[in-house]
Amino acid sequence: MSIAGRPQAAMSNPRADRVKEVAKLAGRPVRLKRRLFLAEGPQAVREALAAHRDRAAAGGAPVVAEVYATAACLGRLPELAELADGVPLHLATDEVLAAMADTVSPQGIVAVCHFLDRPLADVLASGPKLLAVLVRVQDPGNAGTVLRAADSAGADALVLTSASVDIYNPKAVRATAGSLFHLPVVTGQDTETLFSTLRGQGIALLAADGYGNVDLDELQDRSALRRLGGPGGTDTAGLPALEAPSAWLFGNEAQGLSDRELAAADHRVAVPIYGQAESLNVSTAATVCLYASARAQRRG
Amino acid sequence: MSIAGRPQAAMSNPRADRVKEVAKLAGRPVRLKRRLFLAEGPQAVREALAAHRDRAAAGGAPVVAEVYATAACLGRLPELAELADGVPLHLATDEVLAAMADTVSPQGIVAVCHFLDRPLADVLASGPKLLAVLVRVQDPGNAGTVLRAADSAGADALVLTSASVDIYNPKAVRATAGSLFHLPVVTGQDTETLFSTLRGQGIALLAADGYGNVDLDELQDRSALRRLGGPGGTDTAGLPALEAPSAWLFGNEAQGLSDRELAAADHRVAVPIYGQAESLNVSTAATVCLYASARAQRRG
Repeated sequence: MSIAGRPQAAMSNPRADRVKEVAKLAGRPVRLKRRLFLAEGPQAVREALAAHRDRAAAGGAPVVAEVYATAACLGRLPELAELADGVPLHLATDEVLAAMADTVSPQGIVAVCHFLDRPLADVLASGPKLLAVLVRVQDPGNAGTVLRAADSAGADALVLTSASVDIYNPKAVRATAGSLFHLPVVTGQDTETLFSTLRGQGIALLAADGYGNVDLDELQDRSALRRLGGPGGTDTAGLPALEAPSAWLFGNEAQGLSDRELAAADHRVAVPIYGQAESLNVSTAATVCLYASARAQRRG
Repeated sequence: MSIAGRPQAAMSNPRADRVKEVAKLAGRPVRLKRRLFLAEGPQAVREALAAHRDRAAAGGAPVVAEVYATAACLGRLPELAELADGVPLHLATDEVLAAMADTVSPQGIVAVCHFLDRPLADVLASGPKLLAVLVRVQDPGNAGTVLRAADSAGADALVLTSASVDIYNPKAVRATAGSLFHLPVVTGQDTETLFSTLRGQGIALLAADGYGNVDLDELQDRSALRRLGGPGGTDTAGLPALEAPSAWLFGNEAQGLSDRELAAADHRVAVPIYGQAESLNVSTAATVCLYASARAQRRG
């Protein structure tokens, strides 16, 4: 077997030290120490390799440290081997991949990736118009789904406070469906410092709050009127304009945002619940809020 | 220990036949045969009991068959014991509940519930304005999250085709966060029959399709103009009006809707992706679509 001109035998011992070292990335302390995490499955690895190639072309830091794949997977998806040009690529058996990965079946390929998060200052230097901020969100699936929704809505970055779940958790990485490799991510932020820094940049802090006194539908109607030239769209009556640079704050799944966090926001905005649902899932709320801002900012 | 005047000892043997019978509800064939499923944890059981009480008051069929709870849970949440008035309530240990439930820790309470789905004809008789239809959606978490989002958006029902995941799957039930007990659900529908029945009722079939030729933002702008009295809102140019009775069709996570399903829809509507995300999570897409319709239909 030869991959990219390098003949090699497939790694076949799931108890080998090297396999165990990769498997240890399932634990947060090991990830934090090495600043490495695991992307599992063809979709995630493809996005990782594409990001690696694009960054390399721009002279940036590497994204992928190494790839492990079965020969069957590479035969089925030859473009992955091609994308991996210049990245150490190791053949391995399904058993070895299963021992490395969090998923029962990583579908024949995993990539050990470098942490991707950037300093807040870098993100702010680009003049962001739309940010999603996770404040003490605990479920990795929720965090990953919000990241993917933020990428869909064209947000400029996802920011996580220090008490939030680790975005490199395998479940979170999976839920991002590859978006982790294109949307800038900022982690480990102190909430108060973050809020004051954002405000200092002229970014409005919009707290997504079920009990908020501002109705998101009202904001959307006013924004639509301003865009579409109907009457009454200019008097904002102290309400935030969705077109303006904004950071949406999403709180903990069970408790939402704390009183202190709410008080620190510029506005408390409620997503309307038209039916009988008790509350909104955090990723549902984030989708509605981020798409409302994106629509207001992007519809010319 | 006495609950509702009935002295009893807590069930403590996790291997008792009765415990095993409840645990069997984790399997779809057993659920289908008995038309029973398990709701786990205080939030789900509270919603189940409230629905049971409301239906009983209206002379309807029972929702909850029986409840199993720890004394500690009932001590902590006495309103649950009160809500369970008239429902068989059994004390059990944490070990018994863990053996019954799908979750590692059902937080001290589970309820055996009757299937809740209704005939399509009943839902249609109420003149629905907004329906969510899951066509071959496979992931229970996605199905449950869409149901919860549909409930939030005030949809009239969730409809599942026969090839979709079982909405009574424990993971699906959990993801609904109690909304399964208020939003009407219709299951097991043949896709073609369903589509023609809905169309026969004057309900527009809107396929959520990443490659759709109709832009959801365009529909929202036109709808906003009609509502808000700006210019240009009346010429619909063959486009669907979000205010009109609509059924949104959401397809399989990996493949989306099939060519045949797309051809059977009245319109193929794309949710815009403003960023670099490859595609939208089905629950993210459903949230954007259902909220767009809800806003158009409800903002007076």
